[in-house]
Amino acid sequence: MSFPARTTSAEIELGKTFQPKFGSDGLIPCITQDATTGQVLMFAFMNTESLELTLKTRKATYWSRSRNKLWVKGEESGNVQIVKELYTDCDQDVVLIKVDQNGAANASCHNGYKSCFYRKLADEQNFGLELVAERLFDPATVYKKK
Amino acid sequence: MSFPARTTSAEIELGKTFQPKFGSDGLIPCITQDATTGQVLMFAFMNTESLELTLKTRKATYWSRSRNKLWVKGEESGNVQIVKELYTDCDQDVVLIKVDQNGAANASCHNGYKSCFYRKLADEQNFGLELVAERLFDPATVYKKK
Repeated sequence: MSFPARTTSAEIELGKTFQPKFGSDGLIPCITQDATTGQVLMFAFMNTESLELTLKTRKATYWSRSRNKLWVKGEESGNVQIVKELYTDCDQDVVLIKVDQNGAANASCHNGYKSCFYRKLADEQNFGLELVAERLFDPATVYKKK
Repeated sequence: MSFPARTTSAEIELGKTFQPKFGSDGLIPCITQDATTGQVLMFAFMNTESLELTLKTRKATYWSRSRNKLWVKGEESGNVQIVKELYTDCDQDVVLIKVDQNGAANASCHNGYKSCFYRKLADEQNFGLELVAERLFDPATVYKKK
């Protein structure tokens, strides 16, 4: 599988062919939303291979920039994300996936929260964050130290 | 205003101080969600100045990579976004804002749709996109050709 080439601006923005744009680093941003609640669970990047695998296997597969490798979400923790739908934006340089978050605790974040966005800016003068989510698992029991 | 410096991984991930990470290009990704419905409206980037202005003015202000300038969302179209809340993710290299989408048509996308994510991948074999949203305004009446 390889994705269709980028064509004209009109076709990219208003057409009906998926022509994803991978940046100069080979990556496209991906927003991951809970398919049921709409909660934004996480944000990561995909390269062509991870986007292809995501579509083929229906398991959200990202490109880990820190580890510099393919990252099948949940392969270590069991917190697999089953992809129900994929959207793209007007200029097709972002994808949005709606997923069913699986796993013992149904958490997407390695820190034990449902969503990675578990802190809200509450005190702007002092840049204070407020924890706004409940911890669903203790990371120490899931990610064993190597 | 300048943002607190990045400290330790533990403090960044589990602490209560906002320490946003701007990439080597000076930008941080921003996901914009409708504060009421949770619909993802758009995705863009911010530099320090646009994040500062967003917090100060409460109007979502991005950095336009294509125009290489600050971009107060809605300054031309009137489709201003009033920021109600700001979140960050576990490693604080993304922000998520929840906004009230203003403007005549309450649309966030310059193509006339509520959300930029108005197309869904419907035919994976042929990379076919399906339009899944209603057009709220005709761009030709809002963006005059220069």
